[in-house]
Amino acid sequence: MLYFEDFAVGQKFATGRRRVDAAEIIEFAARYDPQPFHLDPEAAMASLFGGLAASGWHSAAMMMRLIVDSEFRPAGGIIGGGGELAWLKPVRPGDELRVESEIIELRQSRSRPQQGIVKVRLTMLNQESEAVQTFTPTLLVNRRPS
Amino acid sequence: MLYFEDFAVGQKFATGRRRVDAAEIIEFAARYDPQPFHLDPEAAMASLFGGLAASGWHSAAMMMRLIVDSEFRPAGGIIGGGGELAWLKPVRPGDELRVESEIIELRQSRSRPQQGIVKVRLTMLNQESEAVQTFTPTLLVNRRPS
Repeated sequence: MLYFEDFAVGQKFATGRRRVDAAEIIEFAARYDPQPFHLDPEAAMASLFGGLAASGWHSAAMMMRLIVDSEFRPAGGIIGGGGELAWLKPVRPGDELRVESEIIELRQSRSRPQQGIVKVRLTMLNQESEAVQTFTPTLLVNRRPS
Repeated sequence: MLYFEDFAVGQKFATGRRRVDAAEIIEFAARYDPQPFHLDPEAAMASLFGGLAASGWHSAAMMMRLIVDSEFRPAGGIIGGGGELAWLKPVRPGDELRVESEIIELRQSRSRPQQGIVKVRLTMLNQESEAVQTFTPTLLVNRRPS
C-alpha cells in the first residue's frame, strides 16, 4: 500500500492485460450507451467507426479494472476527483488492452490535512502499443499516519 | 435529429430521471471497480465516502444512458473525443439523477469537412439539485448534407 509520501513525480506503474470481446461491448452498450455503432456490427460498418467499437465509458471502465487489479495501491483506495479524458482510437473486439501510468504532480490538500493530491497520467494501449485512451486524474491519497 | 448547423451556443437540453439502486452499484463495481467503498455498505462506512457510493465510471455510464435516451440527438450519433470530467459529490443508493446540458462552443473540424465540433457542458444533478458530476466533451457532429 502506498501512502502519499511514497509517491514521487516520474514514478511509473504498469498493469496486466485485458482482452476485449464483442459480447461484452454489446452488453455494456445495451445497458449504458445503446447507440448502433456499439451494439450492432453491421450498423457500425456504416458509422464513423467503420466497425463495432466499445463505448468510451466501457473503455474507461476496463481501464479502471486494469488499474484496480494492478500494483498501483494508494492508501485509502483509488479515489479521483476527475481529470481530462481523451478517446484517441476505437477499442475493438479482440483488442488486448493494458495501462501505463506516470505520476506527474504531487501537492498538499488544503482542505484535507490527512490526504495529499497525486496527479497521474494514465495511458491505455492496445496490442499494437497504440494509445487508445488517456486520463489524467487527481487522486486523494492518505498520508502516512505519524 | 440535429445537424451541426442546428446547434447554437447557449442552447440547453434536459434528460429524464434515473433512480440509482444499491444492487446496480455493487454489480457495476464487482465488474469494473472492485473497491470496498463501491461493494460493501459496511466497509464503505469506514472510507472517505462514509457510505456506499457508486464508482465514478458507473456515474458516467448512467449519465450517458440518460443523454442517449433524451431529446439530444446529434446527426451521426453521440461521438465524443473526450473532455474534462469532474466528480463533485458521491452518488448514493436512492439518488435520482438527471442531466442538464448546454452548448458552449461550436467550431469547424479542420480534418473532417463533413463534420463540425460541438462542445457541450453536461451537469448531472441529484434529487436535491446538487451537481454530482460534470463532463465537458467535444462531440463530432455531421453537417447537413447539401
